[in-house]
Amino acid sequence: MPGEIGNTQPQFFTLPESEGPVVLRSGQRLPGYTLAYETYGELSPAKDNAVLVFHALTGTQHAAGHCEEVPGLSVEWTPECQAGWWDAFVGPGKAIDTAKYFVICVNYLGGCYGSTGPSSINPETSMPYGGQFPKVSVADIVDSQVRLVRELGIDCLHAVIGGSLGGMMCISLATRYPDLVKTVIPIASGLATSPLQRLHNFEQIYAIEGDANFKGGDYYDGERPLHGLALARMISHKTFISLETMEDRATREIRQSDDDVFSWYKINRPLESYMHHKGKAFVRRFDANTYLRVIDAWQRFDAMEEAGAESPSAMFAPCQHQNYLIFTIDSDVCFYPGHQSDLDAALREANVPAMRITVHSAKGHDSFLLEPELFTPHLVYALNGGGVG
Amino acid sequence: MPGEIGNTQPQFFTLPESEGPVVLRSGQRLPGYTLAYETYGELSPAKDNAVLVFHALTGTQHAAGHCEEVPGLSVEWTPECQAGWWDAFVGPGKAIDTAKYFVICVNYLGGCYGSTGPSSINPETSMPYGGQFPKVSVADIVDSQVRLVRELGIDCLHAVIGGSLGGMMCISLATRYPDLVKTVIPIASGLATSPLQRLHNFEQIYAIEGDANFKGGDYYDGERPLHGLALARMISHKTFISLETMEDRATREIRQSDDDVFSWYKINRPLESYMHHKGKAFVRRFDANTYLRVIDAWQRFDAMEEAGAESPSAMFAPCQHQNYLIFTIDSDVCFYPGHQSDLDAALREANVPAMRITVHSAKGHDSFLLEPELFTPHLVYALNGGGVG
Repeated sequence: MPGEIGNTQPQFFTLPESEGPVVLRSGQRLPGYTLAYETYGELSPAKDNAVLVFHALTGTQHAAGHCEEVPGLSVEWTPECQAGWWDAFVGPGKAIDTAKYFVICVNYLGGCYGSTGPSSINPETSMPYGGQFPKVSVADIVDSQVRLVRELGIDCLHAVIGGSLGGMMCISLATRYPDLVKTVIPIASGLATSPLQRLHNFEQIYAIEGDANFKGGDYYDGERPLHGLALARMISHKTFISLETMEDRATREIRQSDDDVFSWYKINRPLESYMHHKGKAFVRRFDANTYLRVIDAWQRFDAMEEAGAESPSAMFAPCQHQNYLIFTIDSDVCFYPGHQSDLDAALREANVPAMRITVHSAKGHDSFLLEPELFTPHLVYALNGGGVG
Repeated sequence: MPGEIGNTQPQFFTLPESEGPVVLRSGQRLPGYTLAYETYGELSPAKDNAVLVFHALTGTQHAAGHCEEVPGLSVEWTPECQAGWWDAFVGPGKAIDTAKYFVICVNYLGGCYGSTGPSSINPETSMPYGGQFPKVSVADIVDSQVRLVRELGIDCLHAVIGGSLGGMMCISLATRYPDLVKTVIPIASGLATSPLQRLHNFEQIYAIEGDANFKGGDYYDGERPLHGLALARMISHKTFISLETMEDRATREIRQSDDDVFSWYKINRPLESYMHHKGKAFVRRFDANTYLRVIDAWQRFDAMEEAGAESPSAMFAPCQHQNYLIFTIDSDVCFYPGHQSDLDAALREANVPAMRITVHSAKGHDSFLLEPELFTPHLVYALNGGGVG
């Protein structure tokens, strides 16, 4: 029987001042940064059992167990945050077995859960960065986590794992730091932003920018752009959860309190009410500036471009000693199965050992958060060194 | 060779005062209304050759030819409006042959192109209705057009035709006024709003309501909610046009003038620029209050509910003398092919003669505006009395 992680505490790594300022991919500078992270399990004496888990768009460093509080946040650390977002997958005896592996999960650079982000104080002005916080790229986020991995004395990660945008982080790390990792597990992810994702992301940017409270990101001393952020969440949420699941949940959640949400329109269907409450709950726990930074990073992500490669197979050429496990979710309408077949084809062309598994689920993209039984056997197998290689 | 319609003028029908006020489906009242419409061809002495064409979400009464101007609008009558929206289908020798048929097209009640809508003057206050303009239902819009049809002395329409939301209007008319029409041609449409449409519509409502200039709809004396309306247009546009078509168009339309559209985000992809300009062009020619009324009508549409029927086959039971031609567009992601198979199945169960044709197109939902060759032969055949019945 799997055990539980229990209570956890965030840890913090601050880049030594001697290493600042950090020049980001955009050429913009950040005086320095702190990363909030959690670890589970114990690092082996040889430091060869570390697994780096990347969270997705709105995730946190708190992957497993219960974390009561993170000090000093600009947003609420809600019960949703307190429960580890991948607790069903990470723990003793679980898919990512903390009795064997030392698991690390880090809040993105630019984040709002303890890592330096737009709501952090800019040491140069003693005010929150707000709109002055630089653009971050997937590569910047990955680079900061690589810095932390090295700080922990780890020369080579046993594995990197991530779903959705977190899977793009895996690919960015594996291709730009090929000697830093052995097993690479992108789940429901892809090599580059698709046109449909680009449209959805752009709508979300438009929604936040259009909120009169946004003010270029300098809103920390006033009202926050909650309406725009809630709409952004709604737009993306429908790509994460299958329509069936939404309708199921909506049927159970008719609310009579939705009468005066808008100035003219009246909410009159359970599905509308469900969506509205999804948006409303989200904005309590997330910062619009962080959301924009991460969406912007996603919007611009192209693994080949980041790796400076001419073709997908050239990008993966230095990865032949790695071992890939790619997951597809058949009902995924955020990262469609075609995204993973492109990834798989590129790996095969570069002669990189890769195994691709499609799980069949009615739940859509978020299946990788909700249905551990569909992923656990192959995760265990791949982490134990199994694969086609 | 097909001929052309040439220049057209809008006509106006105003409900006689003795018939007001009009009680709408919601129970709300409207003192009266005017409808803007156009007609093409000549009504036969027997008045048995009339074809009523319903426009879609943002269409106009101007289906064919060139209309230079519509007097007194609150929005711009742009070149896009001046060109008849279905000119490729309506005219002498075209699919809807104006040498044979008397074609009528009417701007929706609640519209912004000359029919009474939120920007019209409320006779009771001498101010624009704004937020006070009542909710309209698909049934209300159809009822107003039926009133006009009767005014023209027509007892039975030869056909009703409409794409998208216009197809829902066809079904609403045919099932609630079964003796008023013989041939019913819904294109890329369905019997009821789907869950995915409901989500997309709700996002659009949220976008307009969230614009600080919206003010419950009472914005005619100040700034208009253009950002929210543009976002709404972008959200729906992606369901109308195939991704391929958008990418094609986007590639040809890179603009350097998009640098300062937002307060923080920089537009940096052709697809973003394309979408932004689609939204921006649209808001010149459309009114946010009308948009909300029509989306709201769509959001609540359920043909069975409007007809007061217990089942789809009960709803179609009085329609056995009618003849249906249903079009599906295989690449449609607004009204998916499943919508039309539901409609087809309901008709068959009710023993109503129905023919269903799927056209294969790379262009998505808007194929019914763009590719006359895919629709014309069967339209001609059905209008000439051909069918399975």
